[in-house]
Amino acid sequence: MDVAQPLARYAAYRRAGDFVFLSGVIAVNPSIGLIVRGFDDISAEAAALIGRTGEFSVDAKQGPILAQSWYVLDSIRRTVESLGGGMNDIQKLVQYFRNLDHFPYYSAVRKLFFPELSPASTVVEVSGLLPTDDILIEVEATVYLPPGAHPPGAPPPRTDG
Amino acid sequence: MDVAQPLARYAAYRRAGDFVFLSGVIAVNPSIGLIVRGFDDISAEAAALIGRTGEFSVDAKQGPILAQSWYVLDSIRRTVESLGGGMNDIQKLVQYFRNLDHFPYYSAVRKLFFPELSPASTVVEVSGLLPTDDILIEVEATVYLPPGAHPPGAPPPRTDG
Amino acid sequence: MDVAQPLARYAAYRRAGDFVFLSGVIAVNPSIGLIVRGFDDISAEAAALIGRTGEFSVDAKQGPILAQSWYVLDSIRRTVESLGGGMNDIQKLVQYFRNLDHFPYYSAVRKLFFPELSPASTVVEVSGLLPTDDILIEVEATVYLPPGAHPPGAPPPRTDG
Amino acid sequence: MDVAQPLARYAAYRRAGDFVFLSGVIAVNPSIGLIVRGFDDISAEAAALIGRTGEFSVDAKQGPILAQSWYVLDSIRRTVESLGGGMNDIQKLVQYFRNLDHFPYYSAVRKLFFPELSPASTVVEVSGLLPTDDILIEVEATVYLPPGAHPPGAPPPRTDG
Amino acid sequence: MDVAQPLARYAAYRRAGDFVFLSGVIAVNPSIGLIVRGFDDISAEAAALIGRTGEFSVDAKQGPILAQSWYVLDSIRRTVESLGGGMNDIQKLVQYFRNLDHFPYYSAVRKLFFPELSPASTVVEVSGLLPTDDILIEVEATVYLPPGAHPPGAPPPRTDG
Amino acid sequence: MDVAQPLARYAAYRRAGDFVFLSGVIAVNPSIGLIVRGFDDISAEAAALIGRTGEFSVDAKQGPILAQSWYVLDSIRRTVESLGGGMNDIQKLVQYFRNLDHFPYYSAVRKLFFPELSPASTVVEVSGLLPTDDILIEVEATVYLPPGAHPPGAPPPRTDG
Amino acid sequence: MDVAQPLARYAAYRRAGDFVFLSGVIAVNPSIGLIVRGFDDISAEAAALIGRTGEFSVDAKQGPILAQSWYVLDSIRRTVESLGGGMNDIQKLVQYFRNLDHFPYYSAVRKLFFPELSPASTVVEVSGLLPTDDILIEVEATVYLPPGAHPPGAPPPRTDG
Amino acid sequence: MDVAQPLARYAAYRRAGDFVFLSGVIAVNPSIGLIVRGFDDISAEAAALIGRTGEFSVDAKQGPILAQSWYVLDSIRRTVESLGGGMNDIQKLVQYFRNLDHFPYYSAVRKLFFPELSPASTVVEVSGLLPTDDILIEVEATVYLPPGAHPPGAPPPRTDG
Amino acid sequence: MDVAQPLARYAAYRRAGDFVFLSGVIAVNPSIGLIVRGFDDISAEAAALIGRTGEFSVDAKQGPILAQSWYVLDSIRRTVESLGGGMNDIQKLVQYFRNLDHFPYYSAVRKLFFPELSPASTVVEVSGLLPTDDILIEVEATVYLPPGAHPPGAPPPRTDG
Amino acid sequence: MDVAQPLARYAAYRRAGDFVFLSGVIAVNPSIGLIVRGFDDISAEAAALIGRTGEFSVDAKQGPILAQSWYVLDSIRRTVESLGGGMNDIQKLVQYFRNLDHFPYYSAVRKLFFPELSPASTVVEVSGLLPTDDILIEVEATVYLPPGAHPPGAPPPRTDG
Amino acid sequence: MDVAQPLARYAAYRRAGDFVFLSGVIAVNPSIGLIVRGFDDISAEAAALIGRTGEFSVDAKQGPILAQSWYVLDSIRRTVESLGGGMNDIQKLVQYFRNLDHFPYYSAVRKLFFPELSPASTVVEVSGLLPTDDILIEVEATVYLPPGAHPPGAPPPRTDG
Amino acid sequence: MDVAQPLARYAAYRRAGDFVFLSGVIAVNPSIGLIVRGFDDISAEAAALIGRTGEFSVDAKQGPILAQSWYVLDSIRRTVESLGGGMNDIQKLVQYFRNLDHFPYYSAVRKLFFPELSPASTVVEVSGLLPTDDILIEVEATVYLPPGAHPPGAPPPRTDG
Repeated sequence: MDVAQPLARYAAYRRAGDFVFLSGVIAVNPSIGLIVRGFDDISAEAAALIGRTGEFSVDAKQGPILAQSWYVLDSIRRTVESLGGGMNDIQKLVQYFRNLDHFPYYSAVRKLFFPELSPASTVVEVSGLLPTDDILIEVEATVYLPPGAHPPGAPPPRTDG
Repeated sequence: MDVAQPLARYAAYRRAGDFVFLSGVIAVNPSIGLIVRGFDDISAEAAALIGRTGEFSVDAKQGPILAQSWYVLDSIRRTVESLGGGMNDIQKLVQYFRNLDHFPYYSAVRKLFFPELSPASTVVEVSGLLPTDDILIEVEATVYLPPGAHPPGAPPPRTDG
Repeated sequence: MDVAQPLARYAAYRRAGDFVFLSGVIAVNPSIGLIVRGFDDISAEAAALIGRTGEFSVDAKQGPILAQSWYVLDSIRRTVESLGGGMNDIQKLVQYFRNLDHFPYYSAVRKLFFPELSPASTVVEVSGLLPTDDILIEVEATVYLPPGAHPPGAPPPRTDG
Repeated sequence: MDVAQPLARYAAYRRAGDFVFLSGVIAVNPSIGLIVRGFDDISAEAAALIGRTGEFSVDAKQGPILAQSWYVLDSIRRTVESLGGGMNDIQKLVQYFRNLDHFPYYSAVRKLFFPELSPASTVVEVSGLLPTDDILIEVEATVYLPPGAHPPGAPPPRTDG
Repeated sequence: MDVAQPLARYAAYRRAGDFVFLSGVIAVNPSIGLIVRGFDDISAEAAALIGRTGEFSVDAKQGPILAQSWYVLDSIRRTVESLGGGMNDIQKLVQYFRNLDHFPYYSAVRKLFFPELSPASTVVEVSGLLPTDDILIEVEATVYLPPGAHPPGAPPPRTDG
Repeated sequence: MDVAQPLARYAAYRRAGDFVFLSGVIAVNPSIGLIVRGFDDISAEAAALIGRTGEFSVDAKQGPILAQSWYVLDSIRRTVESLGGGMNDIQKLVQYFRNLDHFPYYSAVRKLFFPELSPASTVVEVSGLLPTDDILIEVEATVYLPPGAHPPGAPPPRTDG
Repeated sequence: MDVAQPLARYAAYRRAGDFVFLSGVIAVNPSIGLIVRGFDDISAEAAALIGRTGEFSVDAKQGPILAQSWYVLDSIRRTVESLGGGMNDIQKLVQYFRNLDHFPYYSAVRKLFFPELSPASTVVEVSGLLPTDDILIEVEATVYLPPGAHPPGAPPPRTDG
Repeated sequence: MDVAQPLARYAAYRRAGDFVFLSGVIAVNPSIGLIVRGFDDISAEAAALIGRTGEFSVDAKQGPILAQSWYVLDSIRRTVESLGGGMNDIQKLVQYFRNLDHFPYYSAVRKLFFPELSPASTVVEVSGLLPTDDILIEVEATVYLPPGAHPPGAPPPRTDG
Repeated sequence: MDVAQPLARYAAYRRAGDFVFLSGVIAVNPSIGLIVRGFDDISAEAAALIGRTGEFSVDAKQGPILAQSWYVLDSIRRTVESLGGGMNDIQKLVQYFRNLDHFPYYSAVRKLFFPELSPASTVVEVSGLLPTDDILIEVEATVYLPPGAHPPGAPPPRTDG
Repeated sequence: MDVAQPLARYAAYRRAGDFVFLSGVIAVNPSIGLIVRGFDDISAEAAALIGRTGEFSVDAKQGPILAQSWYVLDSIRRTVESLGGGMNDIQKLVQYFRNLDHFPYYSAVRKLFFPELSPASTVVEVSGLLPTDDILIEVEATVYLPPGAHPPGAPPPRTDG
Repeated sequence: MDVAQPLARYAAYRRAGDFVFLSGVIAVNPSIGLIVRGFDDISAEAAALIGRTGEFSVDAKQGPILAQSWYVLDSIRRTVESLGGGMNDIQKLVQYFRNLDHFPYYSAVRKLFFPELSPASTVVEVSGLLPTDDILIEVEATVYLPPGAHPPGAPPPRTDG
Repeated sequence: MDVAQPLARYAAYRRAGDFVFLSGVIAVNPSIGLIVRGFDDISAEAAALIGRTGEFSVDAKQGPILAQSWYVLDSIRRTVESLGGGMNDIQKLVQYFRNLDHFPYYSAVRKLFFPELSPASTVVEVSGLLPTDDILIEVEATVYLPPGAHPPGAPPPRTDG
């Protein structure tokens, strides 16, 4: 299964008591060396859901941040679900951008994953992210999963992208 | 009541077990669209307390960071108090600056809120903060509030600014 | 004893329930005003262990980041051990770089402290760190130390540097 | 009536034979000295139509370009209609941006004015526009209005903003 | 057939009375997502005609602008011919460059398409073109095609590149 | 006679039906390789008319843009007159500046050529113009000259500069 | 009365023997926190006198420096007159600009205040002025006012702006 | 005695009639080649008086400008006193900063030397000062010392730093 | 005779009581529109005296600042002598550089004019000087010339350059 | 056989008397148009030998310079060997870097080729190399190969990469 | 005769054994202070040979590098011929560019001087060349001229430019 | 003895036949980790010889390049003498500067070492030198030392600095 995996020899997450700390997630699939650079690097269903227009110039501009936003949040979702939790168990997100002009795009995608209220949130723009300048966003999540917790309510959108 | 509120559709804070995670707080009052840009945007008592000189050039230079520092820490205080806690229940602060030359100003204000020892602290300079370039600082707090905890000692300075 | 100490009047760490939150650590010894700028500012054993070559140009280039990486992680180790814990009790590291080209150097040093798997990890490049531009890296650690926990396994490398 | 007016002493448009040449239009109402800087400077209906979210950070980022795009195209529409024409009589648009990352926003607004196919189009990014740096876009239109032409089909969206 | 096509949902050209207005053309084939980046992206005959030397460093430097110049003018030619016209029916060219040092290369290619006199011409350097930074030139053409006009004289060079 | 001439092998203008399209005009006399750099490069009468003060520093600052503005518009005038038209037959001007702070100077000169209303007008700032960095402005004119048209009203100012 | 006042706790001027040294004057009225940013911040008479055109783009460009020039020199005039002197008693002006391209505008205004010969003059461009980046010019005057001196000749222009 | 001395072979001051003109003073002691870079380069009493906090990061940020401000004004005081005058005999100060954000710090120190009103004052930001980039401020003083003048009132603060 | 003359309509100097205030002097001869750009623009004797080497590259590098230094100080000398004074009557020099790396060159020339001690001196680097970017230095002098004063000692070096 | 070949029509090397001068070598294989951009572009054995870690982020950062260093030195080795010489016959290397921070990586690789002492060496950082910005290093070698010389000692490491 | 001459007091070349080392040659004739800036600074025959088009804009762009390339290589040729050698005796060229985009132009000229194979060659882009920024290229040659060598084959192109 | 030594594990020089190739020399003494930053880092005699003035600001500006020029050429001299040669045996110098404005200073020092004619010479400005940004110049020498050669004429200046 395809949960979020680290880019280096560090833990993808750590469980400590009732909490799970995820490593910062970026839109890279290290197992196949793939960096998500646009709609073509995610599933067609996901691309359609987050706003692919099929117009070349528009998609070339907004594709990278939309696709990375999807990939990152979807990776977090998979990781949390693999631990028996759900998106609502996420308590806090720290979101690092390369360019805050991308925020509206990311915000639109995040609403798909948190149809009601998003977790506590911090947003900053930083001057660099690993591994290359193609990376536009990194998201770090803190999860609360006490024993006996169940993923709440309806499942989030799912495209296996 | 005027506790810290998020700028977007995310939670101002999340309680998870004995912990409360606050979203990053900036000097904006989204309910009235106000960005704190100087002493005139906080109460006169607060302005006096943190060092308004009444000299135009001096206040124009140091007003923005002093006033934002006050507003942000005061917002955090109100939020924590609304949860039945106090400043000493804050365990960690992550402080993002646009310009680290502002640190001495912020540090002076922080001492007013933590007359004894401040919490564990991380300070970095980032290249951008939401929503506009007027924002000079963002502070994210982690609070420990086990059941039965009470706000410790004397109340912090208060000006209702 | 030489545990990590804050650069200002804030707590070096805060214990809250089963968790310990460390302040961001940089390669400065504030008690003697020392900023680690290269191999000469750490012990010779540590310098040898992390790759001093003895060639002037090479060491001038890679010395600052290697020595700071060592100093910072060693400070964290001392702090955690002073609390009765060990490196494996660290759950999450947030690592702020001034220049991500330094990451391979840091990564090599980190492996010495975490011979198996490193904790959950977030890495970003920021535009400034305190107190001066000599500082290349800041690391913030979150530790889980429930009552009765013991430092696991073999002790980490130790040079008293 | 509120047709596009020039910022200086030049013609808003010139009719020459079957053609009408419009001056480049920007989001300024010179009669009241208003520069459109965000959603608050256009009508609420228009703002809603082009995507105001009500979230502070999102609107602060995408508001300026969306509102200017609306204002400019709406000014062109009013001018063309005042001459007895319609949007489909526009043959060519030259669109000057200050930042081509704004193109997707503009493109979305333009579709509201040209629900079918837009005119022949040229898009470039320039380094400055009059009168101030707040101006993000300027659009120049060429119209074909032979005698006896009528505005085609259904009227374009209209909010009087 | 392979006439110039728009990158977005706008008209590749518009006929208005005796005139045809073409959209600005860039060296992109949106149907297959191809951006022309060098000699390898056009036909070998065209590459030879416009000056491929077969020397690696030389071609790496001058290939992008030469190939884009060819592609753009050839697209315009195909479009005009599909309308029953020829290169001499083009009345005006507005040529946008990213770097005016490229002008001599472009000028040499343009002479191949207009062996006698080129149309009225405007040349400026702009700070950005769609869709990506690979695009070095955009050309907008105005054509005069009254009924009964025929493509004049000898056909332009043709390589079907 | 001294009408506007192209800098390269392209047409200074093209007549198409009732319209004349002029190439973009800059302040260069290619026949003698002269670039207009100040008042000394135009006639004394023209210099006096457009504001030469005779003070060294003032003229050094405002001379280049004033003289180029004059030269360019005067070249356009000569071209239009050579075709039997006048300034009022110009329908549209597209004006490219290297620095929009020059606009007030240009605007003052343009009023001398269009004592009543100027044509439809587009103004943008671009990052480069041919042939050298001395060129501050380029102007492209579209003229409507149906058969039988006569230059209207009083002749424009004339200094043969 | 409205003589030049300091922005901070320093003397607006000092009389020493037969001389008066004025502090550097900028276009700020600290008593009401007003920074002069354009024609609207001075009296209509003054605006007309120094060249307001009523055209939006022109005034937006040249208004700030013209209005500040006026305000600063008028403040100096009021101060000197309050001491019983006149403009001709000013011996030296040191003029600091943010952008020397503004010099012609300033020079035109200065002639209104010194219809004959201006005092000894030094002009430099500096990289910053207090209190904000809106300030475009600062002027420092040295005055000679021996006992018994009278303001010479006709009074300077006066608009009480 | 330690009065202000020139960095080069020019006079530290010149007496002309009732006036004394001081050379611009910077925080350098050329006799020992010392550049004041922080609190450690002035006396401990002076450092305490102007705000040393003892916190590493704060002092590293605000120390340089505070210490230089002190050193420069103290040098001027010593020079004036060596001539039999006092701080109130200073009529004008021209203050050159490398960064006007330092103004509030300087202003606070200046008040210690001029407890009542400071002299006439000009403040500008320049792009460089001698001898190195460590120099943050240079101050030039004009003094009025007619025969028989005595240093007025209480002596200024004194630490022999 | 060739004394320093102003570039604009202001006084080259003003006599006030026992003092003479000179305008800032630059290396321009406005009567013939000459800007001093190197050794060729001053007399051969002066060029030899201040260090022309006759080697092309060396003179191209150091010629501009050496020649301007000479021209400016020589202009001041002529002005002072025309008033019956001498170099030793100069009390203060304020020297504005475009690049402080030029200071050693200027300092060497200044010693030729002040073989003993130079006057009180202030040196700063500014971001611009009138009238063009060729100007590297501007010097402003304050002179003390009470009635009956005579030029002291031996005359300064003289080449009539 | 695969010896170093030129990118253009110049000699890969020239033999002159006892000396051989090699052209500057970069990491490009012009016969197949390959630019070495990372470990994947050299043989797996070579990649392993020079430090491929298999961790995505680490290899993405240090791969390009390590692989290019290998490729360039290996090309030189092959060329020298094809002439009957060996690495120890190389007398001088001039090494041009795009970024001197890469020096430690290069230095480590060079030791593999010169296990004892490297030749005389010059290292500089330049602002550009042919043919594209991917090229990080260029190395020029001077070889001494008198008749009868034999490749000395043990052969250098060899991977046929 | 007009062989390459040094810009300063160093040797134009040095003969050492069978070798001749030339100083780096730039397009300057120090004897008459001429810097080659375009086609007008070389002979008309040479200009024609290397591609003068007679079109103003084209020649203004490509003239400087073409003419300098010619001048430099022609100077080298003259020097080598004055020593009794020929172009084929040149073994190595080190070519320093200010801008590698000029390489194709230079390469075309070099082929005229080396109709067969050029010598061993190194090409880098540097950030500056003597004596001024007009210099675009510097070439350093190493020549092999053993006793009895004769200039080989047909003489190179010759225009005495 | 103190001959030029390499900064890394490469040869300080290589003898090949009658030639000696020196590594590029910089002003660093690696045996004691000294980087020459000014006059204090060389002997007093050398400092006096090359122009120390004893004035703080002047020496701070010109000291670094003068002292490094001396150190580098003196190192080369020692190396050549240790091989039994002299300065006149040097055939070629390649000189890399960080800033070509330093050339006149270097040229003056070089004349002391080559009182007659300097060797063949190449001068370029590069963007970086090892090991740190303090290094302003690197010089590479080629020497011709056939058997039986003797150091020619009078010994060069010598201060053992």
